[in-house]
Amino acid sequence: MIYKNIIAIAIGGALGTIGRGLLNMHSLWIGLPIATVIENIVGSFLLGLFTGWLIHKRTKDWVKTGIGVGFCGGFTTMSTLAADTLLLYMDSSLLHSFVYLFVSLFAGITLGFIGLILGSKWGESEVKRKVVNH
Amino acid sequence: MIYKNIIAIAIGGALGTIGRGLLNMHSLWIGLPIATVIENIVGSFLLGLFTGWLIHKRTKDWVKTGIGVGFCGGFTTMSTLAADTLLLYMDSSLLHSFVYLFVSLFAGITLGFIGLILGSKWGESEVKRKVVNH
Repeated sequence: MIYKNIIAIAIGGALGTIGRGLLNMHSLWIGLPIATVIENIVGSFLLGLFTGWLIHKRTKDWVKTGIGVGFCGGFTTMSTLAADTLLLYMDSSLLHSFVYLFVSLFAGITLGFIGLILGSKWGESEVKRKVVNH
Repeated sequence: MIYKNIIAIAIGGALGTIGRGLLNMHSLWIGLPIATVIENIVGSFLLGLFTGWLIHKRTKDWVKTGIGVGFCGGFTTMSTLAADTLLLYMDSSLLHSFVYLFVSLFAGITLGFIGLILGSKWGESEVKRKVVNH
């Protein structure tokens, strides 16, 4: 059971991290590390969506950890967020580093919340459809 | 060249995410998601240390991305940080969620900075040792 979880985490983590790496390689530089901002807020939205869906739907433990801890965790990063905040302060200005940190966190938490609500509605409508069809 | 980077990112990401998953599974619950706090601040410290070391030392591109984007990025997470902040607010209190967010960010950025200084000193002393020995 635990080995299934670890394999799912490894595969999810590798896929999420590859997605982040590719986005980093193909993003334009606009003065802020825009790729990391996108990865962190999209990943937070996806985790919220999945967590909201799980309120109503049951799924296997390895699917939960593979998508949540693995993919969403691998796609987002806190170490680069901390490093970018520091580097922006040193290379640019305190304002730039503050804007970067604030946008990442505010948008991440807000989109995580919107994801949670949408995911919960999605899971609920799936359960209702199942009840009607049976 | 790019394929080497992607493979390194995948392996680093998988290993970092497994480390995070195992820490999550084996951590005690003390009212705050302590495992995620530890992962985020340790990962930020490691990325700072590696970045500081890279100021003085040259290494292959796939080693850089494998350790930085892959391992440190996979070991840390912003999606769980956003989700935990939200869940702590909903299940516990605004104070708890604020403390969690503040500790993660403040300790992450501070330890990232300490890592950067230590890594730079470490890289510098390695370069000096090399110069003396040759």
